[in-house]
Amino acid sequence: MAEPLTEIQLQHWRSFLESSWALHTRLEDELRAATGLSMNDYHVLVVLAEAPGRRIRMGELANRLVLSPSRVTYQINSMIKRGLVRKESCPEDGRGYEAVLTEEGLETLRAAAPAHLTTVRKSFIDQLDDEELAVIGRAFARIRKV
Amino acid sequence: MAEPLTEIQLQHWRSFLESSWALHTRLEDELRAATGLSMNDYHVLVVLAEAPGRRIRMGELANRLVLSPSRVTYQINSMIKRGLVRKESCPEDGRGYEAVLTEEGLETLRAAAPAHLTTVRKSFIDQLDDEELAVIGRAFARIRKV
Repeated sequence: MAEPLTEIQLQHWRSFLESSWALHTRLEDELRAATGLSMNDYHVLVVLAEAPGRRIRMGELANRLVLSPSRVTYQINSMIKRGLVRKESCPEDGRGYEAVLTEEGLETLRAAAPAHLTTVRKSFIDQLDDEELAVIGRAFARIRKV
Repeated sequence: MAEPLTEIQLQHWRSFLESSWALHTRLEDELRAATGLSMNDYHVLVVLAEAPGRRIRMGELANRLVLSPSRVTYQINSMIKRGLVRKESCPEDGRGYEAVLTEEGLETLRAAAPAHLTTVRKSFIDQLDDEELAVIGRAFARIRKV
C-alpha cells in the first residue's frame, strides 16, 4: 500500500493540475481563434517541419503526440483534407505509412507561429524566471520517461 | 512585436508541453480503467467533497474545472444520471443552481482515491524532489492567475 500524499504534496499537485489544465485550454482557444488550428494540428506541423525530409512514420508521430494509433489516423486524415499533410507509403517498408508536410502546411505553420508563441511567452515563459523554467524543463523531461 | 523564444526556452517549453500532455493522458487512462471515472468526474467529486455543505454554485464549479458553462452543464448532467451528484436551486438565489454531492458520489470518490493517488505519486510526486515540487507548485499557482 502506497503512503498517502502529504498536505503540501497534495496542494502542489492540485496547483499544477488545475493550472496546467487551464493553460492547455487557453492555448487551444487562442490558437483556434487566431488561426483555426487545434494544438494537435500545430504540434503535428512543428514535429513534421523539424523531421528530416519533413516526413515521419505514423507510429513515431503517435508517440510524439500521445495519441492512440486510431486517433492519429483521424488527426492526419483531417489535416490531409485541409491540404496541410499528405500520406505516403514508406520507401523502406511497403506496409508502413509516413505523414509528409506539404508546402501549404509549412506556410500555415509559419503564419501561425508568431501569434502562438506570443501566447506561450505571455502565459508561461514570462511568468517564470530562468531557474524555474530550467527546473520545470528538466523535471518534465524526466517525468516523460516514466 | 514580441521577442522570439530562445532555443533553451523553446526546449524547456516543449519538454513541459509534451510531458504534461502525456501525464494527463496517463492519469485519465488509468483512472478510467480502474474506476470508470474521467478526470473531470474525479475533479468534480473532489471539489464538491471539500466545499462547505458539499455543494457549490455551477459558475464557480466551471471556473475550478476550466470548462465553459455549457460543458459544465453536460458534465454535471452526466454525473446526475450516474447518481453521483444532484442539482438544486440556490437557497439565496432562486435563479441559480448548485451541484450537490450525493452519498453515492462520496462513496465513489473514497473508493477511487487510493488507486488514483498511487498513479499521481508514481507518475509525478516520486519523480520530483521536495524543492522541485515546491518550485512547480508555486510557479503554476502564479501561472493560474494570469
